[in-house]
Amino acid sequence: MKKILILGGGFSGIYTAKNLQKQNLDGFEIELISDNNYFIFQPLLPEVASGTIYSSDAVTPIRQMLKGIKYRNAEISGIDFKNKKVSILQGFKKSTHFIDYDHLIIALGQVSNLDIVKGLKDHAFTMRSLQDAYDLRNHILGCLELADVTSNKDLKKRLLNIVVIGGGFSGVETIGEIKEMIDRLIPYYSSIKKSDLKFHIVEFADQLLPDMDKKVGQYTLKKFKKNNINVHLKTALEEVTQYQVFLSDKKNIATHTVISTIGSTVSKLIKDCNLSLQHGKIITKGSLEVEGLDNVWAVGDAALIPNKDKKNMLYKKKKIAYAPPNAQFAVRQGKLLAKNIKAKILGDNLSDFHYTSKGSLASLGSRDGVGKIFFITVKGFVAWLIWRAFYLSFLPSFATKIRVLTGWIVEFLVPRNAVMTRALKNDAVAYQNFKKGDVVFKEGMIADGFYIVTKGSFKNTFTKTSSGKKFTKFYKVNDHFGARVLLSGSRRTGTIEALEDSKVVKIDRDTFKVMNKHFIPIKDYFTNYIKDNFKKLD
Amino acid sequence: MKKILILGGGFSGIYTAKNLQKQNLDGFEIELISDNNYFIFQPLLPEVASGTIYSSDAVTPIRQMLKGIKYRNAEISGIDFKNKKVSILQGFKKSTHFIDYDHLIIALGQVSNLDIVKGLKDHAFTMRSLQDAYDLRNHILGCLELADVTSNKDLKKRLLNIVVIGGGFSGVETIGEIKEMIDRLIPYYSSIKKSDLKFHIVEFADQLLPDMDKKVGQYTLKKFKKNNINVHLKTALEEVTQYQVFLSDKKNIATHTVISTIGSTVSKLIKDCNLSLQHGKIITKGSLEVEGLDNVWAVGDAALIPNKDKKNMLYKKKKIAYAPPNAQFAVRQGKLLAKNIKAKILGDNLSDFHYTSKGSLASLGSRDGVGKIFFITVKGFVAWLIWRAFYLSFLPSFATKIRVLTGWIVEFLVPRNAVMTRALKNDAVAYQNFKKGDVVFKEGMIADGFYIVTKGSFKNTFTKTSSGKKFTKFYKVNDHFGARVLLSGSRRTGTIEALEDSKVVKIDRDTFKVMNKHFIPIKDYFTNYIKDNFKKLD
Repeated sequence: MKKILILGGGFSGIYTAKNLQKQNLDGFEIELISDNNYFIFQPLLPEVASGTIYSSDAVTPIRQMLKGIKYRNAEISGIDFKNKKVSILQGFKKSTHFIDYDHLIIALGQVSNLDIVKGLKDHAFTMRSLQDAYDLRNHILGCLELADVTSNKDLKKRLLNIVVIGGGFSGVETIGEIKEMIDRLIPYYSSIKKSDLKFHIVEFADQLLPDMDKKVGQYTLKKFKKNNINVHLKTALEEVTQYQVFLSDKKNIATHTVISTIGSTVSKLIKDCNLSLQHGKIITKGSLEVEGLDNVWAVGDAALIPNKDKKNMLYKKKKIAYAPPNAQFAVRQGKLLAKNIKAKILGDNLSDFHYTSKGSLASLGSRDGVGKIFFITVKGFVAWLIWRAFYLSFLPSFATKIRVLTGWIVEFLVPRNAVMTRALKNDAVAYQNFKKGDVVFKEGMIADGFYIVTKGSFKNTFTKTSSGKKFTKFYKVNDHFGARVLLSGSRRTGTIEALEDSKVVKIDRDTFKVMNKHFIPIKDYFTNYIKDNFKKLD
Repeated sequence: MKKILILGGGFSGIYTAKNLQKQNLDGFEIELISDNNYFIFQPLLPEVASGTIYSSDAVTPIRQMLKGIKYRNAEISGIDFKNKKVSILQGFKKSTHFIDYDHLIIALGQVSNLDIVKGLKDHAFTMRSLQDAYDLRNHILGCLELADVTSNKDLKKRLLNIVVIGGGFSGVETIGEIKEMIDRLIPYYSSIKKSDLKFHIVEFADQLLPDMDKKVGQYTLKKFKKNNINVHLKTALEEVTQYQVFLSDKKNIATHTVISTIGSTVSKLIKDCNLSLQHGKIITKGSLEVEGLDNVWAVGDAALIPNKDKKNMLYKKKKIAYAPPNAQFAVRQGKLLAKNIKAKILGDNLSDFHYTSKGSLASLGSRDGVGKIFFITVKGFVAWLIWRAFYLSFLPSFATKIRVLTGWIVEFLVPRNAVMTRALKNDAVAYQNFKKGDVVFKEGMIADGFYIVTKGSFKNTFTKTSSGKKFTKFYKVNDHFGARVLLSGSRRTGTIEALEDSKVVKIDRDTFKVMNKHFIPIKDYFTNYIKDNFKKLD
């Protein structure tokens, strides 16, 4: 048996597999590898974050979609084009295996690239995976819970400012859904007034939904303004810290909730393959073959595919038009790819990709939508209804269709579920950015972690318990703070403040304690460190 | 305003709050504190684990249940009975606050006590919280995914053995639901045969559901045997390791899935309060007042409450009967407590707790159930239907009732959702137990973490790359292994095997790398360590 190996379980991978199965290629086995055992329907992620539909309904198990096709749940760690092998990491212990292929289909999509703005990677939520939507939802509910009971006004303000970066489809749909969710929930939070909440969307272009017509952008802007969403157009994101986002229009926003929908790049795996890339995508022929390789194909968002249709195209200023990265195009590419692989095997001619978009729609939340179908602009409740019907039709299994439709109907009947399914939990390690004057922690707080300075400098102001006098101490790069109180189990005795643009890595309390308990070099280090540095303090 | 402060958001806390609100006590404010913002319906947790209902539907937001009552989402860190203050940790940074009270109601339930069996804490799943059910579900799906593709027969066997510890309500319902879920899913896993799967339930008593009649236990046993569930009665759990459970009947089971439904104790908070405890519960008067304290009350599973009814009682051999820890009793206690607090305020006489159970039901999975209603034994589909109707009626909000009922109906119509909502993720730190001969990791594996020996000893067998000869190295308590390959990014060069009953703590790969990158003492230590120990190896 020869093998057609598909890497990735997104639209392009799944539809390629489905269409290949229909071709009934004798002597060929199809296998699909993906690290998620489900197909994710990304346009529904904002609805998962807002609780309109259940997280498990935005996704469909790959095994249920691809009956008769071999599926393997594993992480792909490398591709060896020369020997036609893919290496994977499998199971709880991540052991390595090698899978041989005859035809290879790269359908790995793209990943978030948050390195484009300082601090974005450390402080922003993204909207690519189920876990992302789930984390965002729990975080926002946690902000509401805390804002309802805190007496710290600055903190309350930060907790109730929500900032979405990017005014494309994902950004517009995310802020619309989040706003609707919070509007429905705040009656249950008696100390939060509707006017305490501020919603912001930041877009670099001069209109919202910049891939669409001016008219569509204007309608969205008008609706957002009416719905009390602050729109920052022609505005760049300059920096994100633990407490603020900095914008090019100088209207900085104090917030703990930044959601980034910008920045895409090819995955690390593809980068490591030494394939020719352009615009962060694999250079692909019209036939979907990867340039310079035999029997290697690329589809979907990871591939830069020339498209004969010049109306809907990426990189408009260039001479060649490329297929845009969306589901409609990925599905068509999967169809063509299956035909081309059959043709290649039979020695027939390959066809080039050619597709004209049927239109695009965006949901704006609160039963409002906007978009274009062919050349007709649709708006309002009708657009929103078509949007829902369209996505329902696109859902890949009957079971999921029923589940999502039921969810939507139930949502009309009963209040939104405001369950914070997970308690606020600290990551084992996290990087945090601070501006001059920002406080890392204050005297009296419970020790939440151990901090190492990775950039800039900090000042510690503390009071000696014996004399009651105030003293200061300074920390520079590679210095650390917070260990003593963590190990003694008492409260913070000092206040730590950044002296310039600075960065720390925080090791969570429990992780640090276990390391200190069992790892003798650390234990010895801290025994000496505390003896040498804190004798005089207590 | 005086304050009635309720600690805990379970059945007893919530129903006390609801009943207190009805009493309309002038001059008193009611506040409830809980670290989860939802009320959890524990009997539905096995259905969450099995995917019959959505995780967010086994729970109801406390704010939606208790309109008009102040709710605070915080962790309770201490009670100062002398000064009538409760200390709490609030928000992302866990800052400390103090809440004064006039009346205090302790409704904190119990927590799992896994220290009763060696290794249980490190290797068992529990069924107390939403996160527990969710983790178990993802783990089982992960086992099926791996079992479908692995070529390691021992591993496959371990992955397909499921062991539930405890044959009470929670244990019986858990194994029934899990079995039904897996039976429905395996058609999608082409390399797994139904006969590859083994289900085990372990109970110390001589019958399943030992709190119920012999007849009920016999019916359950008969049904489980018919359903291919292995029942181990009069059997104690002796030890759990990374690869096996050890039973007193010497039938050890190789498994990666151990679910513990045994072992309860009072929370650490209560232990730290120096209250008088008996059977791991707070000694409480019939009036629900805590012995020896004024205006402090205890209800629910955390309290040892005398009950006049001798038929349904805990600790049957003792002279006094106590109320059993279940929802029916907790709800009644909440009702009485609200009345008694009002009486206390008005100077009236307090009443003692008195309630006779209306019966108990257990779901056995696959639309089968068993139980007693008053003195009538009910069995089979009818019992299962009554069980569902009963729990539906018990659900605290109309919205949740609709959601759960819809879920049950949809479940009849469409296939079960097999989505693994979260990728297999390693904890930042985890303890692991090994028996003599057990392998921690093998040559060729990707480095998944850094290991420190906390008990026993290990042998490392490795081959020198230069000469090709085999060598050994030994590790005792406080020694560590796994760092070099982790830091060099290559594959394991040795195989680590336990030489006796041993234990390690594993620090996850990413956490360890961050620590090593930024924390100079660790970095220096490993630079020297690798120079001193591995020069000759490479």
